[in-house]
Amino acid sequence: MKAFSKTLGEIAQFIGGKIEGEAQAQVKGVANLESADQTQLSYFASPRYKKALLSTRALAVLARENAPPIEGMNWIRVANPTLAFAQVAHWFNPRPQWPPGIDASARVHPEAQIHPSACLMANVFVDKGAVVGARCVLFPGVFIGEGAKLGEECWLYPHVVLREGVLLADRVTLHAGAIIGADGFGYVFDVEQKKHTKIPQLGIVRIEDDVEIGAGSCIDRATHGETLIGRGTKIDNLVQIGHNVRIGPLGLICGQVGIAGSVTIGEGVVLAGQVGIADHLSIGNRVIASAQSGIARNVEDGALVSGFNAFRHADWLKFMLSAHKLPELLKEVNRLKRRLEELEKKELP
Amino acid sequence: MKAFSKTLGEIAQFIGGKIEGEAQAQVKGVANLESADQTQLSYFASPRYKKALLSTRALAVLARENAPPIEGMNWIRVANPTLAFAQVAHWFNPRPQWPPGIDASARVHPEAQIHPSACLMANVFVDKGAVVGARCVLFPGVFIGEGAKLGEECWLYPHVVLREGVLLADRVTLHAGAIIGADGFGYVFDVEQKKHTKIPQLGIVRIEDDVEIGAGSCIDRATHGETLIGRGTKIDNLVQIGHNVRIGPLGLICGQVGIAGSVTIGEGVVLAGQVGIADHLSIGNRVIASAQSGIARNVEDGALVSGFNAFRHADWLKFMLSAHKLPELLKEVNRLKRRLEELEKKELP
Amino acid sequence: MKAFSKTLGEIAQFIGGKIEGEAQAQVKGVANLESADQTQLSYFASPRYKKALLSTRALAVLARENAPPIEGMNWIRVANPTLAFAQVAHWFNPRPQWPPGIDASARVHPEAQIHPSACLMANVFVDKGAVVGARCVLFPGVFIGEGAKLGEECWLYPHVVLREGVLLADRVTLHAGAIIGADGFGYVFDVEQKKHTKIPQLGIVRIEDDVEIGAGSCIDRATHGETLIGRGTKIDNLVQIGHNVRIGPLGLICGQVGIAGSVTIGEGVVLAGQVGIADHLSIGNRVIASAQSGIARNVEDGALVSGFNAFRHADWLKFMLSAHKLPELLKEVNRLKRRLEELEKKELP
Repeated sequence: MKAFSKTLGEIAQFIGGKIEGEAQAQVKGVANLESADQTQLSYFASPRYKKALLSTRALAVLARENAPPIEGMNWIRVANPTLAFAQVAHWFNPRPQWPPGIDASARVHPEAQIHPSACLMANVFVDKGAVVGARCVLFPGVFIGEGAKLGEECWLYPHVVLREGVLLADRVTLHAGAIIGADGFGYVFDVEQKKHTKIPQLGIVRIEDDVEIGAGSCIDRATHGETLIGRGTKIDNLVQIGHNVRIGPLGLICGQVGIAGSVTIGEGVVLAGQVGIADHLSIGNRVIASAQSGIARNVEDGALVSGFNAFRHADWLKFMLSAHKLPELLKEVNRLKRRLEELEKKELP
Repeated sequence: MKAFSKTLGEIAQFIGGKIEGEAQAQVKGVANLESADQTQLSYFASPRYKKALLSTRALAVLARENAPPIEGMNWIRVANPTLAFAQVAHWFNPRPQWPPGIDASARVHPEAQIHPSACLMANVFVDKGAVVGARCVLFPGVFIGEGAKLGEECWLYPHVVLREGVLLADRVTLHAGAIIGADGFGYVFDVEQKKHTKIPQLGIVRIEDDVEIGAGSCIDRATHGETLIGRGTKIDNLVQIGHNVRIGPLGLICGQVGIAGSVTIGEGVVLAGQVGIADHLSIGNRVIASAQSGIARNVEDGALVSGFNAFRHADWLKFMLSAHKLPELLKEVNRLKRRLEELEKKELP
Repeated sequence: MKAFSKTLGEIAQFIGGKIEGEAQAQVKGVANLESADQTQLSYFASPRYKKALLSTRALAVLARENAPPIEGMNWIRVANPTLAFAQVAHWFNPRPQWPPGIDASARVHPEAQIHPSACLMANVFVDKGAVVGARCVLFPGVFIGEGAKLGEECWLYPHVVLREGVLLADRVTLHAGAIIGADGFGYVFDVEQKKHTKIPQLGIVRIEDDVEIGAGSCIDRATHGETLIGRGTKIDNLVQIGHNVRIGPLGLICGQVGIAGSVTIGEGVVLAGQVGIADHLSIGNRVIASAQSGIARNVEDGALVSGFNAFRHADWLKFMLSAHKLPELLKEVNRLKRRLEELEKKELP
């Protein structure tokens, strides 16, 4: 592999930053403050990392104007160091290029359409009527069901499963073991036959541009119509999304979140780890739910919710403080009661 | 594909309903109220969907006698519209037929028995002594361990893993990525060697008739004996069931539920999403646990439990109402205390 | 299969126990008290199983000196019956031997190194520069990414995915569907482009000796540097471990636990089922967290924590007791308030 290297000046130009230091210095890679060596660019985005900044060996650091001064450091001043770092990191570490073509062990139905620039690795299975767009990369063991359609530049890591009819737009990334379009969980009890009768799950899943879905996550197909993951939404590992859920664009759904059937979620929502949302609820735009929140009612735009039954966050913090005092409060009330009784006795006559 | 079409009269006869409208009208498919077109049958099962009913374009609707009247609508009156709809939906949308046979890339041990009507797709692996019954469908990448046995009409979606010795009865459906029979989580600490020593997991998993298990769910093998999933129980995605758990028939276990080792669960139990049950507990028949409940003690037949440490549901609702008032209560008690002190001072002489 | 059988005397010698009974009796297997037959060895480790002990048909029982007496029973007295049983159970039930060699359907890159004693089954995929050590067993469908390295005697069950660069030491066991080294969940919002920009995940995962990881669990690669699972730590099914987490040796992480990015965990920690830990926290040595705990602050060595926001366990128990009394407390305080008002009125003049 040929070494990739850029001058600080080239990097500053690439990200629109301002150099303080040697514009000609050669940068050979990127790393965080702790692990960077004397050839690497790093970044400082939060006071949390001040100690690491003061001891870093990095050649140069991306930072805002107000970063602590360091003698002899090369800086590139930017408005958002994390964003600038991400952009440079992609430049230095592009996704590997996979050669176009279909591995001999892949099983592609004669009525499937595979773009010639796509890469299908070993043991990929593509069923009838499926479409795989330009520059898609399908790792070993990927399963594409009948009539599923992938836009351009979708990456499906090993063992991803797209059941029949699932639609991916462009630049969708599905991590290993993600399962898209399994049957929704819908049954009706048959009193006469004494059994749960399955409600056929006849809909699909549609995933818009630039969505990324984590390892082992499951997005169920709709009972009718579609389950929808909106443009640019990012979903972490082991997340469960039920049938007919609709998630707006630009959401962040963290690990092990569970969203029950027919929930509608607005734009730019953040659900922290292990949050649960009960079925048929409506969650507004820009809602933030703290980790492990249990949401059992609708949530309006912009709300910050926390805890079981999803209090407003401020109320939850108050409750949490109070909760620690509850056992003592019980005792205090009993003491007050006794004192009151004493007074009342005296009043009697 | 030849269009499948039935008259309303034929459908009414099939499900035992009563027609109000044109018995000769041709139905070409089924859909929910919102998405149905003028050739499709829909259903109305809950007041929640009254608005959708009033604006539906459906040709006919399955409903109880007391549904809101709609001019010109064709009805089929039934006692349970959801059940009737499910039955008609299956009639119109049967599971696809997969041709019997073993794909050339499948790896079947010479001492395994595969029924000639079974379908084994690409890269299926079947180990020594395994048995695959009539009309089973094994999707690409399914793994069947040594001595595992499948009854008739089992469907195993892509990448399902059955470890050695697992037993499936008839009509068991396992969704993509489900893992049945991985080792239970059992260790004993060896103080001298300072390490966790694995307790060998020597038992199996047995799954009875008509069980369905969701994508990515894991059912661990027993330490000794068997982990059991009872007849007709339905399990959603990403559920974890520990070693030696015994679940009775006709349960509904929702997404991301976790059941620790050696729990015994009765008949017809409903566990909502993200419920956790601690090890060795006994959960009675027809118990219902609300989403995210943490169950840490035995639960008697018919109980409805909720919340952390699984309160009775009614107590939990009361607690939740009170919890919101707790911070104010703390202040109120302090105010009362001060007023009481004032009174007590006056009493002093 | 030739029957494996040992005398009680041989077993006592193997585990360093003391016989009470017939040293020459032949043991043909091991089982728990309930399922053991007259040729099998069992164990008694907890009063919980006293009833099973009194009715067991086992030929002999491993037990401490103080086990309840049973007429005619053969005993082997040991300090830790569970440990002794585990050792004998392994002796009687060794892991199956898989023949060395690479299945014809496996896809091994010419620049990968596979030890001749390793077993690579059907459809295993090993990318460039990967190393598979002596006596490793890779079940069907295992994926080994570029440059990943496995030490000796690693067992990877079906469909395990090791992304590029992941390092396993010796005797690591990964259960079916475990995914090691998927991208960490890291994005930065680009206000101008109005989108989440991915932060490249450039680090690896390193797993030390004797680690075991459950089915479907996901361990994300580091953003920079490494995510680390320490020596001898055991992880259950469907666990999510974020980027840059560091877990010390000898931990026990139960099913469905979620650990957010950059958490550091000490030695010998026990996290019960469904525990969640927020990002960047530090959890001390020998911490124990009860099931479903939500940990949102650092935890010192040796602490026992429980419940939402992870109370100290003793405080949580007190809170739980109080919580049940909260609705009544609210009423009581109102009653007190009214009585106080009565008194105050009388005081007025």
